[in-house]
Amino acid sequence: MQVAFLLYDGFTPLDAIGPFQVLASMPAAEPVFVAERAGPITSDSPRCTIIAQLSLDQVAAPEIVVVPGSLTSFHDLFQHEPLLDWLRRVHEQARLTTSVCTGSLLLAAAGLLDGLPATTHWLARDLLATFGTTVVPERVVDTGRIITAAGVSSGIDMALRVVQRIHGDDVARAVQLGIEYDPDPPFDSGSKENAPPAIVAAVSASLARRGAAWIPAMTAPGSATPEA
Amino acid sequence: MQVAFLLYDGFTPLDAIGPFQVLASMPAAEPVFVAERAGPITSDSPRCTIIAQLSLDQVAAPEIVVVPGSLTSFHDLFQHEPLLDWLRRVHEQARLTTSVCTGSLLLAAAGLLDGLPATTHWLARDLLATFGTTVVPERVVDTGRIITAAGVSSGIDMALRVVQRIHGDDVARAVQLGIEYDPDPPFDSGSKENAPPAIVAAVSASLARRGAAWIPAMTAPGSATPEA
Repeated sequence: MQVAFLLYDGFTPLDAIGPFQVLASMPAAEPVFVAERAGPITSDSPRCTIIAQLSLDQVAAPEIVVVPGSLTSFHDLFQHEPLLDWLRRVHEQARLTTSVCTGSLLLAAAGLLDGLPATTHWLARDLLATFGTTVVPERVVDTGRIITAAGVSSGIDMALRVVQRIHGDDVARAVQLGIEYDPDPPFDSGSKENAPPAIVAAVSASLARRGAAWIPAMTAPGSATPEA
Repeated sequence: MQVAFLLYDGFTPLDAIGPFQVLASMPAAEPVFVAERAGPITSDSPRCTIIAQLSLDQVAAPEIVVVPGSLTSFHDLFQHEPLLDWLRRVHEQARLTTSVCTGSLLLAAAGLLDGLPATTHWLARDLLATFGTTVVPERVVDTGRIITAAGVSSGIDMALRVVQRIHGDDVARAVQLGIEYDPDPPFDSGSKENAPPAIVAAVSASLARRGAAWIPAMTAPGSATPEA
């Protein structure tokens, strides 16, 4: 069972590695990192570089696709046909196409979320809506063949649900125990709805300074609802 | 503020990337991946390779050190002096030396946990105790200058406490919100204490098959309590 993790310049490391850690533990999983060109791909934190083993044209029919997001500017990709075409082609045959964080913006740009509910990083909800997607402010949104997850760390929760879907409850429990996922965050500050308003404002400003061109102030790209 | 993430052949990806995602978001953080030799380092999942920018001798005085664990056999490292020497040397000056999962076995092998309480992956507790460490079955154990975390995903919780220690509650809350860390695991199966006994047994057997020579059945290495 090939599980393809898309990489591109500026991806967010935990968006990819959270699901990788979970899905690579599945029985018979054959994980692979894929990018437009194989080789080293640098994340939105420039000190993290992960190797893509295969190029897009070498991965024609993965069973599961995982699309990470970016916390910096990456909206040129919303019109980058080689990537969007690949997403459309692999989704035709894939058992599950999934995204983490702003990765759902790429699925939307490819037209895969047309008419579907989906989630994304809390700061990108308004932008996702401009693609015609019904934005649901939940952590994991499962529409059947497409599963989207909220910001960054939510990919772990999403991937455990993928294991549950494919292998059942007990295997998902085992994978969860294997990575000792018994979370204990120090604060109740992990969602826009729970965090203090001053913290919400500070994070919004901070990510904007880091170049997150997808935050609400951004103008959505012209071809916001491309035809698939 | 240099934050050094140690890599070695067979490291567990999420052990490194969970804390990286959190600590790279800290104000003024300068994260760097370091390994015995700079270059690509492959994890215990052979499809995940991360680039180490610097070699051990190029990182002399990081302020924070993060040591990931391995879910496969890596106990040759328990006697690998170039690595253990580096850990001892950087710990002398570091503000915080931290570990995730079985990374605490490397700290113990270097003698850094002598007389201290510490935690590790639930399957490695017995082995950690053979080093003379007082094993505490908690998710994060903070002894002041050394913080150890339990299995794999616990590095996220640990790293948020590091941010809290260094920058205070509000910055830690902001980093938590930035990565939308509002965890929602599908089951209450993330710890040895909570998971069904049959699942505990299955994971133990599964990791043993993957080559986790550090699980309880293993004989501890001869030099279990080296002098620092």
